[in-house]
Amino acid sequence: MRDKGIRTRERVLAGATEIFHRQGFSGTSIHDLIRVTGVKKGNLYHYFSSKEEMGLQVLSRARDDFFRFLENSLQGDRPSVQLANHFDSIIRYHESRNLVGGCIFGNTALEMSDRNDTYRDVIHSVFEEWRRRIRDVLKSAVRFGEVRKDLDPEAMARNIVATVEGGIMVARASRNPADLKACLAVLAGILGIDGETVTHGGKQTG
Amino acid sequence: MRDKGIRTRERVLAGATEIFHRQGFSGTSIHDLIRVTGVKKGNLYHYFSSKEEMGLQVLSRARDDFFRFLENSLQGDRPSVQLANHFDSIIRYHESRNLVGGCIFGNTALEMSDRNDTYRDVIHSVFEEWRRRIRDVLKSAVRFGEVRKDLDPEAMARNIVATVEGGIMVARASRNPADLKACLAVLAGILGIDGETVTHGGKQTG
Repeated sequence: MRDKGIRTRERVLAGATEIFHRQGFSGTSIHDLIRVTGVKKGNLYHYFSSKEEMGLQVLSRARDDFFRFLENSLQGDRPSVQLANHFDSIIRYHESRNLVGGCIFGNTALEMSDRNDTYRDVIHSVFEEWRRRIRDVLKSAVRFGEVRKDLDPEAMARNIVATVEGGIMVARASRNPADLKACLAVLAGILGIDGETVTHGGKQTG
Repeated sequence: MRDKGIRTRERVLAGATEIFHRQGFSGTSIHDLIRVTGVKKGNLYHYFSSKEEMGLQVLSRARDDFFRFLENSLQGDRPSVQLANHFDSIIRYHESRNLVGGCIFGNTALEMSDRNDTYRDVIHSVFEEWRRRIRDVLKSAVRFGEVRKDLDPEAMARNIVATVEGGIMVARASRNPADLKACLAVLAGILGIDGETVTHGGKQTG
C-alpha cells in the first residue's frame, strides 16, 4: 500500500475506533463511518472488506493499546504500589473521558459475545491477559507479605477484572466517576493497599 | 384496549424483551421484531409509537421482574444466608440461560447510557435499588456479627453490584459460567458467608 493509502487506512481506523467505542458495533452505521472518517463508501470498502473486518481491526488495535496500558500502569517498586497505580490509572483514564464510551472490550463483550465468536475471542484474550498480569502481581504481593496470605491470587485477579468492568458500568449508569472510585477503593481495602498510591501514566484502559 | 389488543400488546412485549435482551437495542431491527412477534409493522406501531418506546416498556417490565427477583432471592433466616441465596440465585439464573443475553440492564447500560437519558435513568434506578437492598442486608449482617465489623455496607454493596455485573461479563466472554461463580465465591469469602448456602428461587436476575 502506498503512503497515502496507509494514511487513509489509519485515519479510517482512528475514526472507527472512536465511534465503535462510543456507539457500539451495531449502533454504528456505514453512514456514521463515512461522516466521521470523511472517506467515501467505495473507499472504505477498498481498505476493509466489511464493517465486521473493520470492527476486528479496531478491537485488535485496542488490545495492543491496552496491553501497553497494562505495562505502563503496573509500575512501582513493590507489588502493592503497582496495583495501586493500576487502579489509579484506570480511574484517571475514565475521568479524562468523562466516562464516555466506557471500556470498548466490556461494551463489545456484552454486545457481541452471543453473536460473533471472532470478536468474543479477542475480548476473552484481553480479559485473560489482564487477569494473568494482575495474578502475577498478586502472587508477588502475597510472597512479600503485602497482602493477606489467605488470598487466592488466581480467583482474586478474576474478581478484580470483573469489579473494574462492573464499576465502569455502574459509574456510566449514574454518570458519576465516584462510583467507579468507590468500587476500586473497596478492592484496595480488601487487598490492604489503600493509601499506597503513586501516580503513573497510561494511554488506554479496560 | 380490548382483550385481543391487550393480548397482542403482551405478545409483542414478550418477544421484544427476549430479542432486546439477546441482541441489544441497536442490534434489533424492526424486521427482527416483526419476525419474532409475528405482528405486522403497522400493527406494531399501533401499540407502540416507536422502537424507543417499546425498549422503554421492555426495560420497565424487566425492572419490575428484577425487583421481584431481589425479594425472592434475598430470603433466609439470617442476613448471611440471604446474601448467599442471592448469589446462588444469580448463578442459577445465568446457568439456566447458558449465559445467553447476560443482564439486560448491564447490556443497556453500556450500549445506551451515553445516548439515551431515559434508558439510563431506568438502569440507574435498578442498580440503586439493588445496591440499597444489599446494603440493608449487609447492615443487618454487621449488626448480628455475621460479617467483619470494619466492613462499610454502603461501599461494599456498590462493589457487590459491580462485581456481579462484571462477573456476568467475563463469563460471557469466556462462555464459562464458572468464571461468574468464581467472582461470587471471592465475594462470599470476603464477606465470610461461604458455605452458608440455602437454595431459594427467583425468576430474573441482573
